[in-house]
Amino acid sequence: MENVAVKGFKAAGVASGLKKRGKKDLGLIFSQVPASVAGVFTSNLVRAAPVLLDMERIKSGSCQAIIVNSGNANCCTGGQGMRDAGTMARLAASELGISEELVLVASTGVIGEPLPMEKIEAAVPDLVRSLQPEGISDLAMSIMTTDTVPKMVSGQGLLEDKTFTVIGVAKGAGMIRPDMATMLCFVCTDVEAAPEILKEALVKAADRSFNRITIDGDTSTNDTVLVMANGMSGAVIQSLAHKNIFQKVLDEIFLALAKQLVRGGEGVTKLVEIVVRGALSDSDARKVADTVAHSPLVKTAFFGEDANWGRIMGAVGRAGAEVDPDNIDVYFDDVQMVKTGMGCGKAVEAEATKVLMKPEFVVTIDLNMGRGSDSMFTCDFSVDYVRINADYRS
Amino acid sequence: MENVAVKGFKAAGVASGLKKRGKKDLGLIFSQVPASVAGVFTSNLVRAAPVLLDMERIKSGSCQAIIVNSGNANCCTGGQGMRDAGTMARLAASELGISEELVLVASTGVIGEPLPMEKIEAAVPDLVRSLQPEGISDLAMSIMTTDTVPKMVSGQGLLEDKTFTVIGVAKGAGMIRPDMATMLCFVCTDVEAAPEILKEALVKAADRSFNRITIDGDTSTNDTVLVMANGMSGAVIQSLAHKNIFQKVLDEIFLALAKQLVRGGEGVTKLVEIVVRGALSDSDARKVADTVAHSPLVKTAFFGEDANWGRIMGAVGRAGAEVDPDNIDVYFDDVQMVKTGMGCGKAVEAEATKVLMKPEFVVTIDLNMGRGSDSMFTCDFSVDYVRINADYRS
Repeated sequence: MENVAVKGFKAAGVASGLKKRGKKDLGLIFSQVPASVAGVFTSNLVRAAPVLLDMERIKSGSCQAIIVNSGNANCCTGGQGMRDAGTMARLAASELGISEELVLVASTGVIGEPLPMEKIEAAVPDLVRSLQPEGISDLAMSIMTTDTVPKMVSGQGLLEDKTFTVIGVAKGAGMIRPDMATMLCFVCTDVEAAPEILKEALVKAADRSFNRITIDGDTSTNDTVLVMANGMSGAVIQSLAHKNIFQKVLDEIFLALAKQLVRGGEGVTKLVEIVVRGALSDSDARKVADTVAHSPLVKTAFFGEDANWGRIMGAVGRAGAEVDPDNIDVYFDDVQMVKTGMGCGKAVEAEATKVLMKPEFVVTIDLNMGRGSDSMFTCDFSVDYVRINADYRS
Repeated sequence: MENVAVKGFKAAGVASGLKKRGKKDLGLIFSQVPASVAGVFTSNLVRAAPVLLDMERIKSGSCQAIIVNSGNANCCTGGQGMRDAGTMARLAASELGISEELVLVASTGVIGEPLPMEKIEAAVPDLVRSLQPEGISDLAMSIMTTDTVPKMVSGQGLLEDKTFTVIGVAKGAGMIRPDMATMLCFVCTDVEAAPEILKEALVKAADRSFNRITIDGDTSTNDTVLVMANGMSGAVIQSLAHKNIFQKVLDEIFLALAKQLVRGGEGVTKLVEIVVRGALSDSDARKVADTVAHSPLVKTAFFGEDANWGRIMGAVGRAGAEVDPDNIDVYFDDVQMVKTGMGCGKAVEAEATKVLMKPEFVVTIDLNMGRGSDSMFTCDFSVDYVRINADYRS
C-alpha cells in the first residue's frame, strides 16, 4: 500500500488498549482548515451512538476531524453511549484546539459493551502527536476488526489545470450487504466543493459500489461513509463538467474499495461478479442478482469450485422477478453452462470448473426477455467464514 | 422409528443404482383403493418436471400411488424431463395394474442431469414386489439425500367411535425456507375426506409448520407435499368438529416433522425457536422473526455458543419492521440478556451461555410496542454446513 498525501490532511492510528496484543485501535483524520463534509449511514434502525451523533452534527456541512475506534461499537449502550461518543469528540477537539462541533466520531467492534473511556482519554494526546501527512495508512490499520488487510485507494483528477487528490480508506469484512455496504469508509480530498455537491457525488458513488456488494447479507448498526473536502488543492467544482470529473474519480475509488472489501471478506477465497441481463426491467435484474449473490447454496458451491448451475437456477426462480425458466442462459466467464434452461452437458463442465478455480470470475445470467440489467459483487461462503464468526468474541 | 401401518396403504423403498453404494433411492406408496389427494408445491418459478406433472394431474383430486426417486431432481431437463416423469408414472401404473393418471411422481437430488431411466425401469418390478404395510420406513430411507436420519411421524384421531391413523414422512436437509419449506413430504391417512377438505387442512398445517422453518434460506425447485386419504378406516370427516380433530392430528405431525427437518439439517447442532412478541402487527413480528432466523451472523454465533445478542439487535433493526431500539428486550430461554435495548451485563452472560450450550432453546424478542407475535424455527450455521454443501456433487 503506497502512502499518498492529500493537501492539508494529516492522519494517525495508535494502540489505546481497546484491542489485544498492542494492535492499533484508535484513529484520527484532521484537516488544517474546516472542510465540507457529506455522509451516508446505516439503514438499520438499531444505530450506534456515534452514528446518531454524526447524523445530527453533519447537518452543518462542516467538519475538521474524525476520531474513530475499533474493538467496541458503542452500540446498544443507551444514554451513556451517547455521552461517551460526545466525549470522544470533545477529547479530540480539545487536544487539536478546535470546536467539538467540527469533530465526527465512528466506532466498530463488539455491540453492547460500554466504551472504556479511560483508555481512549489516555491515548488521545499521543494520537494527536502522531498526526502526519502520510498517516492515513496507520489510520487504515487502526479501524480493522476481522479484516485481514487494510484497504486504501487513491486517485487524482484535473479541474482547469489544478490537480486534486482523493484518498479513501475502508474496513468491513463481515456484516456487508446492499443498502449500506461498508462498515466504515473515510474519504479525504483537497478539492473544493459545497457539501450538497459532495453529498450528491457520495450517494451516486456508493450506489455504484458499496450498495452492489455482499458478503453475508447482514447490515451493521455502525455503517458510516464520510467524505471531507478541504479545498486546499485550489481545484474547485463549479460546473457540471467538473462534477463529472470528480464523480469519475470517486466512483473508481469506491468501486476499488468495494471489491477489496469483498476480496478481504471473512474467509473469502473468491470474488464473483453476478451479471444479470435480458430482464424485463432493471429492478427485476437487481432482484435476480441479489438473490443469487446471497444464496448460501450458490456461495458454498463457489467455495467448493463446483459448477453446480442448478443452484443458480433455483435462486433465479425464487428471486421474485419475472423469468421464463426455459429461456435462461448461464455463463461462467465465457463458458456457457446453461442454454434455454438446460445444462450444456458434461463436456463444458470441465471448462467451467477451470473458471471456478480462478480467484475472480463472472457469472452471467441472461434471462432473454428484455433489456433490464444489473450486477453485484459477491464471494464464496467458506468453512473459515463460519469459524471466524463462531469465535468472533472469544 | 416405530413402524406404523395405515389401513389400505403399502409402501416400499429399494436401491435402483441412482445413488452410490447400494443405498435405497426409489420409493413407492400405494393405496388399495383410489384415495382423495391434495398437494402444495414449491413457489419457485423454476420447477422440476415431476412438480409440473403433479400440479396438472392432482386437479382430479384422486390418486392411488406415488413413485419417488432420490439422487436426481429431474429439473432443468426440458422436454425429455417431462417425458421421463410421465414414464416413471406409467412404469409404476403398469406394474401395479392401475391407471397412470392415478400416479403422482416426485424427485429429489442434483439438478440438470437427465434421469437414468433404464435404472428406474429395471427396478420398478422389484419395487412393486417389495410393497408392504410397514414399508413406509423403507420409503423414508429411499427419499434421503444429505439427510442424516429418515423422518417419520404418525398420529391417530377418533371420529364418532372410528379411529383413523395418519402417517407422514419427510426429507429435506438443505434448501429449506418459508413459503415452501420441506423438500418432500408424503402423508397417508385412512380417514375419508373430500379433496377440498384435505387441501384446506394441508395448507393450514403447512403454514403452521413447514412455512415456519428455515435452514439456509434457499427454496427448492422440487418441494412437494402430498396428502392421500383412502377412507379405509371408516372414519369420515363430515362436520366442522371432525375437521378440527383431523387438523389437530395433521398439525402435530407436520410440526414434529418440521422440527425434525431443522434438527436433521445439514451440519445442524442446535434447534432454535425465535419468538417475537410485542410487535405492532403479526406481520411485523414475522419480518423480525424471519430476519433473525436467517441471519448468518446470528446463526454462526449459535454454532459458537456465543451469547452475542448484538447480532440479534442488528438483525431486528434491519428487518423492515417498526421497532424502537431503546425498548427491546431479548431472552435466551428464561435468561434476560437485553433490557430496553441494552445488555444486562456480564453477570447474566454465563447463564445465557449455558442456554446456548443446549441442543434446543428459545430466543424471545419482545418489541414492547403492541400485541403482534410470530415465531420461527431455525438452526445454527456450522462448519459442517459449508463442508457438506461445498462437496455435495463430488
